[in-house]
Amino acid sequence: MKKIIFTVAVSFICLISFAQFAGIQGGQKPEPLPEGFKPSACNTFLSQYPAVNSQTREALFRVNAPTARLVQVDLAGKRYNMKRDERGVWTCITDPQVVGFHYYSIWIDSVPVMDRNTQAYFGSNWESSGIEIPEGPEGDYYRFNKNIPHGQIRSIYYWSEINGLERHCNVYVPAEYESNPQKRYPVLYLLHGWGEDEDGWMNQGHMGNIMDGLIATGKAVPMIVVMDCGDIKTNPDVRSASTNDVTQIYVKDLIPFIDKTFRTKTDRMNRAMAGLSRGGMQTTMTVFNNPDKFAWLGTFSGFFMGGFGMRSGDKAPSMSQLIETAFNGVFKDPSAFDKQFRLLFISTGTEERSPKEQVEALKAHGIKNIVYHESQGTAHEWLTWRRALNDFAPRLFK
Amino acid sequence: MKKIIFTVAVSFICLISFAQFAGIQGGQKPEPLPEGFKPSACNTFLSQYPAVNSQTREALFRVNAPTARLVQVDLAGKRYNMKRDERGVWTCITDPQVVGFHYYSIWIDSVPVMDRNTQAYFGSNWESSGIEIPEGPEGDYYRFNKNIPHGQIRSIYYWSEINGLERHCNVYVPAEYESNPQKRYPVLYLLHGWGEDEDGWMNQGHMGNIMDGLIATGKAVPMIVVMDCGDIKTNPDVRSASTNDVTQIYVKDLIPFIDKTFRTKTDRMNRAMAGLSRGGMQTTMTVFNNPDKFAWLGTFSGFFMGGFGMRSGDKAPSMSQLIETAFNGVFKDPSAFDKQFRLLFISTGTEERSPKEQVEALKAHGIKNIVYHESQGTAHEWLTWRRALNDFAPRLFK
Repeated sequence: MKKIIFTVAVSFICLISFAQFAGIQGGQKPEPLPEGFKPSACNTFLSQYPAVNSQTREALFRVNAPTARLVQVDLAGKRYNMKRDERGVWTCITDPQVVGFHYYSIWIDSVPVMDRNTQAYFGSNWESSGIEIPEGPEGDYYRFNKNIPHGQIRSIYYWSEINGLERHCNVYVPAEYESNPQKRYPVLYLLHGWGEDEDGWMNQGHMGNIMDGLIATGKAVPMIVVMDCGDIKTNPDVRSASTNDVTQIYVKDLIPFIDKTFRTKTDRMNRAMAGLSRGGMQTTMTVFNNPDKFAWLGTFSGFFMGGFGMRSGDKAPSMSQLIETAFNGVFKDPSAFDKQFRLLFISTGTEERSPKEQVEALKAHGIKNIVYHESQGTAHEWLTWRRALNDFAPRLFK
Repeated sequence: MKKIIFTVAVSFICLISFAQFAGIQGGQKPEPLPEGFKPSACNTFLSQYPAVNSQTREALFRVNAPTARLVQVDLAGKRYNMKRDERGVWTCITDPQVVGFHYYSIWIDSVPVMDRNTQAYFGSNWESSGIEIPEGPEGDYYRFNKNIPHGQIRSIYYWSEINGLERHCNVYVPAEYESNPQKRYPVLYLLHGWGEDEDGWMNQGHMGNIMDGLIATGKAVPMIVVMDCGDIKTNPDVRSASTNDVTQIYVKDLIPFIDKTFRTKTDRMNRAMAGLSRGGMQTTMTVFNNPDKFAWLGTFSGFFMGGFGMRSGDKAPSMSQLIETAFNGVFKDPSAFDKQFRLLFISTGTEERSPKEQVEALKAHGIKNIVYHESQGTAHEWLTWRRALNDFAPRLFK
């Protein structure tokens, strides 16, 4: 009797799980995937779909929607009509995709929704679906490596007077942090892009794996990495955005909190900031307005010296005008810039708008502490930014 | 010029955000919410909907779906048909709800999907929508309190030989942990329920706020709380479930890893396990099969001594048979049980199946180290489990 109760309890748990497993795939037992296709690494742990063919880089989607009239997948700027079978299960195979992480959505009768088969990735200000077209061994740097020590990403709430609310941030500490209770560490503040949040670098970016690898191999010095949110936060009682900008939150609330809570080095030579896309803009605004606090900066797919805000008929400023005036004239005197800032790292993917011309002009103007990095074959997406971080972090605090 | 570029860059960021804000609410500027309604605390930070009337406990949902034929909300066991206006925006106000956290889904032409207005909560093995019907000040114990010190919840990956993969767990350490580098702490292993994951206690349960409050007021001793996943994990290369059960992972992989990585007290008197629903079953299975490792246990809405696995025609075992045989006879000798286990905490909500009769029988049988806790007016949901943790944790390690 006792053995029966025990065994049956275990079986019961398994039964629930496998019933669910079948259920989410369209009410049937899971069918074998077509030759060459494997579940995407972004799927929830029971989901076969979406599936990816790593050779052809095609993606296979599947949605169970018996009474819908039109089911589509929106991926990388293209909307695919899915095809219905007699059971009401809709599928499609996409064009070959660029390697790396892509947000996507499913459209059920023209309503964009998250695909319930994937984990949630906050993007475009909602919880989005994600799919990963895998790289080969060249992507190992952002994968989990069981043979090296691992840092921790700590979920932290701090009170922001400026925001008027508690704010959530994530703080990476290197593996050695706890075994060196007297040691102090330099700090990189690392920002996400528009519509994303402070979890982006952890979930979409795999920054923990990247930093673990760089530190374990001695390429990067052990450092703390702080990932805060790039938006003014709200709650049900405080729904309207504050008129302050996030730079003020970083400088007045976040940095003092981090320096009080972690064993940081607190001088400007040991503090860096970097961000992607809008986070790159926020980085330049924050660092160039607070040069007493930062000596290193990186802007991944987010650097521009001008061009916004012109009215039709305005004459575009020349490159030399831009260099003279951008960011309150920080580039005007190149040797003063190099004395003040140890590194301005500017990166981009080759398949997106390039700041290369501006970087070349800054170099020609005489600025030396500038590094330009291009990610081959990638666009305004996370693989570009994983590669940027992997190239940027080893240059810091040396 | 330089001021213009700066100002316009900032405005540009704001414009994107507010355009998005309007977009997700149905293509229009946000309209004022009806009198008495506020955005749910589970919403993404820009979303007005769903909204909750804390007096009437009604919930107001809204979906922009111009070409859909049928849009519904599925909440607390009831499916509501939403009403379409001339713009194709669908709304409905639900019946009064029980206070606390509820999963829900939106059905677009009969396809259940996540509402893009809420944060993602992993439940029923997919990323689900959540809504919170707020309590009054009696719910303050699970809210952020800016006037007390806060612990950290650390995101950790560890290698599991039994699972054959890296596994993710969350580890809460109390606020004082880092300022006492010599001190060792007792450990509570805390499990989620079926279909949820290791983030459940953090996101749905607010365990960080609960533990911070209990420790700051001296009600609970400072402790480490480990939240692992209750499922065998898979990845694209290892998609089939291992034949091992999770108990083996906890005992052979997780506990040694935690004891190596954190400053833990490693004897059984300083190790507890608790879980909700299926996690309660996993707790009894793990603890009663490994009494050398644990002295305290809690099962929240998850205790049963038998009843599963009977075939039709089987005679149900009597209560005294159950007490003799359940869990390999652990209850048979009550004084032996009390000598071995310092606490068996069993809790439930008054609106779900109650184990009260079994608890009464165990007490009548002579077992003393047993505590029964009821959450008034709540069902098989997270408010029941927040209350259970708040009552359970102060009883540990004393």
